[in-house]
Amino acid sequence: MSQDSRIKSNAFREKVMPAEAAAALITPGSTVGMSGFTGSGYPKAVPQALAKHMETANAAGEKFRLRVLTGASTGPELDGALAKADGIEFRLPYNSDPIAREKINSGKMEYFDVHLSQVAPMTWQGFFGKLDTAVVEIVGVTEDGELIPSSSVGNNKTWLDCAEKVILEVNSWQNPALHGMHDIYYGTALPPNRKPIPLVRPDDRIGQTTFRVDPSKVVAVVETDIPDRNLPFSPPDETSQRIAAHLIEFFEHEVRKGRLPPHLLPLQSGVGNIANAVLAGLNKSKFENMTSYTEVIQDGMLDMLNSGKLRMASATAFSLSPEAATNLNANMAQYRDKMILRPQEISNHPELVRRLGCIAMNGLIEADIYGAVNSTHVMGSRIQNGIGGSGDFARNAYISVFMTPSTAKGGKISAIVPMASPVDHINQDVQVIVTEQGLADLRGLSPKQRAETIIENCAHPDYKPMLKDYYRRAREHSYGQQSPCLPSEALSWHQRFIDTGSMKA
Amino acid sequence: MSQDSRIKSNAFREKVMPAEAAAALITPGSTVGMSGFTGSGYPKAVPQALAKHMETANAAGEKFRLRVLTGASTGPELDGALAKADGIEFRLPYNSDPIAREKINSGKMEYFDVHLSQVAPMTWQGFFGKLDTAVVEIVGVTEDGELIPSSSVGNNKTWLDCAEKVILEVNSWQNPALHGMHDIYYGTALPPNRKPIPLVRPDDRIGQTTFRVDPSKVVAVVETDIPDRNLPFSPPDETSQRIAAHLIEFFEHEVRKGRLPPHLLPLQSGVGNIANAVLAGLNKSKFENMTSYTEVIQDGMLDMLNSGKLRMASATAFSLSPEAATNLNANMAQYRDKMILRPQEISNHPELVRRLGCIAMNGLIEADIYGAVNSTHVMGSRIQNGIGGSGDFARNAYISVFMTPSTAKGGKISAIVPMASPVDHINQDVQVIVTEQGLADLRGLSPKQRAETIIENCAHPDYKPMLKDYYRRAREHSYGQQSPCLPSEALSWHQRFIDTGSMKA
Repeated sequence: MSQDSRIKSNAFREKVMPAEAAAALITPGSTVGMSGFTGSGYPKAVPQALAKHMETANAAGEKFRLRVLTGASTGPELDGALAKADGIEFRLPYNSDPIAREKINSGKMEYFDVHLSQVAPMTWQGFFGKLDTAVVEIVGVTEDGELIPSSSVGNNKTWLDCAEKVILEVNSWQNPALHGMHDIYYGTALPPNRKPIPLVRPDDRIGQTTFRVDPSKVVAVVETDIPDRNLPFSPPDETSQRIAAHLIEFFEHEVRKGRLPPHLLPLQSGVGNIANAVLAGLNKSKFENMTSYTEVIQDGMLDMLNSGKLRMASATAFSLSPEAATNLNANMAQYRDKMILRPQEISNHPELVRRLGCIAMNGLIEADIYGAVNSTHVMGSRIQNGIGGSGDFARNAYISVFMTPSTAKGGKISAIVPMASPVDHINQDVQVIVTEQGLADLRGLSPKQRAETIIENCAHPDYKPMLKDYYRRAREHSYGQQSPCLPSEALSWHQRFIDTGSMKA
Repeated sequence: MSQDSRIKSNAFREKVMPAEAAAALITPGSTVGMSGFTGSGYPKAVPQALAKHMETANAAGEKFRLRVLTGASTGPELDGALAKADGIEFRLPYNSDPIAREKINSGKMEYFDVHLSQVAPMTWQGFFGKLDTAVVEIVGVTEDGELIPSSSVGNNKTWLDCAEKVILEVNSWQNPALHGMHDIYYGTALPPNRKPIPLVRPDDRIGQTTFRVDPSKVVAVVETDIPDRNLPFSPPDETSQRIAAHLIEFFEHEVRKGRLPPHLLPLQSGVGNIANAVLAGLNKSKFENMTSYTEVIQDGMLDMLNSGKLRMASATAFSLSPEAATNLNANMAQYRDKMILRPQEISNHPELVRRLGCIAMNGLIEADIYGAVNSTHVMGSRIQNGIGGSGDFARNAYISVFMTPSTAKGGKISAIVPMASPVDHINQDVQVIVTEQGLADLRGLSPKQRAETIIENCAHPDYKPMLKDYYRRAREHSYGQQSPCLPSEALSWHQRFIDTGSMKA
């Protein structure tokens, strides 16, 4: 394997070493900022070598654990390997690795679930302490020593700026045609020196195509050719298709009413099968010339770019099925004018989400009858993935939509409950809830009006009578009537599931 | 009473009529946007005349109710009078009137508690339906027919723009020296046409000093001289002073660590006795040349302007004690270069709060052990005032602080509880909690780390053992260990208070 052609700068070529040697530069107890966002562009060789060091140390009774900061979720070679080695003491932000999740939920790993837009500024502000090392996957190094970003941008600019030392993985699996696709904005500052971010359209370019790095901080360069590892998506099932149909009907209605422009507004979409079903539905809709301003480009968005329905997509990463990732990687050049990858502090920036008027479409774990949404925990305490960027988008969107099947676990869990626990999106930030049962348009409604609409339109028939019964009794016996509530019963559905395996009475 | 000199335009002078005649132009069932923000600049004569019409109609069995939109809370002549007449069907946003509160909590009035920054854009977006009438207090009309704003700006620009007809109250009690103090920004737009808001310092002026209005929409001009009616503040008690001392010590520490600049960052402060105590503390601190970018200018901020500690204040309204209001009104001219009043969509705009890096300081009703905050409801269901602008500031602040005495109701309510209900500020948006017991710095901490810090530093000694006991058992028996929780017990403190009048076991 020769990748010399990817490293055009001598200063960097001199620092090439094996992953094991690079990993040995990371010291126990330190804080490491890693690249990676939803299975794209994360370092693969160094973390695996690091995990071996950790296993050896831990076997010898010497604790080797790190504080690990990333863009969002990564892949099994990073979160999985380090968590398996019991090498993560503290982790932020979003995580979807099953081994790491198990460590968190069994109390063996501390996890801080922060808004994705705030990771970079809070790091710079010093709120997470000193950043010792950055480990960042790149596609290559230019002759001038600038770094060509990989298939995700995430917080890499900030890791490279703030870390005391830098380890680079140059990944020759990534298509060199990625060069030119990124837009790295170097205009951020700490207050009182912040300026308006000069982006007014999703397709505006406001930065440069490469990362800067102080070469004296670069302590190792590692060459790899390991592919990004993503999860496959299922084809849309009937439930997802019905959710998509309700939502597209709503968009058509809003355009007719003059409350949405004919090409809609920039789309933000979460990941997963329902998100892909909605995008597939939009791809078959009559809407044309759409744009996206979102976190990730997933299969459905790629299909929309291919069909021309989506004029362009702005994101911070790819989040593709293995087939789509392979296919995109083979044909990267033809997408370069249709895609822009940005730092996540820009892709998710509240200033920009509100200015652009994004249509936010996110999944949920449960919503309560007043429309507060839990996106993160199962039964009040067990973390699923994290809040990710949903808070960045939901609060600032033009219309904030949350979507879910009305039940989970074969009907044993209702997605609509008397009280969500915990709450990640307050009722003010949830304007539309969609299940396969129907759509609840909550804009401008008081809590009681919201409750009646959500129960009627979104609840599953198995749970609707239970919800109506709770709500009727809450109206009778509640301490106050703004948001009727029976504290002794509001979380009883969760307790029943824990005790019996079902929320059904 | 002659106020002709306040109305320089003939076209407006011709429309002068008594309040009763103006009120008769408002039709039952319609939607009315009123001026007013925390007891400042609300219309006083027309709402009182309207209330009489309502009482007459209601006595005759003809229902006369309105949908009422304001800036925030108003005064007894508006919310109190209309609520007493049973004339408000639906109300948004923030309310602090006791009669209206009682109507809401007894289920006789629908109340929609929306983020203050979003009232204006959502009105324009059409999400609240058609706006029939605007009733706006002003200080005068220029020869060109532009309107001189009063002691609050609120949503008046949007009401004047969007309403089908406009009723003006020209209030000669207000000092004409208010002319020139306002900054009304006319650069907002609906997406996809939004542009960066060109404000980079709290003292930037980006608009004009007057409102525009289409004169053909003005159906009535009413002359009044009724004073703004505000609530008195208590002098800071020992609890408030201890909260203030903890917070100022924290700011000093952050400056020493280089995480805050020496003049701090623009201050946002809620209203009430604790807020005034903190401002009084800052007025005695060593900090100089401070600025504020906030919703309201309250007594404490006026004192800081007088002493010169505060260089300037930007807000959308005054929120003063009767004495301070009288005093300011008598000496308005000398404050004109130190104060800017803006529309609340600008004073609270997420884009600007994040850019300026505001230090947000807000009160709370209760916080849970993970740092989620309830700002709105008592015992889960009874509305107090509303979320106001706390969400606009808390999520986007440089540092988001919440302050409270550790107990309420003579010790029968703990401000720190196992679970907050409802949640208005998720744990991610709450970085510092302060009580008279101490300060919890939660930045970068996982939920369990947060719980230990909050219980240790903030809880009252009467409740600390109960919280420790709950948390210990939650750690033992919780379904997951990310945010340990016992669903059957999490809200039991609220139920106990409802049942026994005390949260104590």
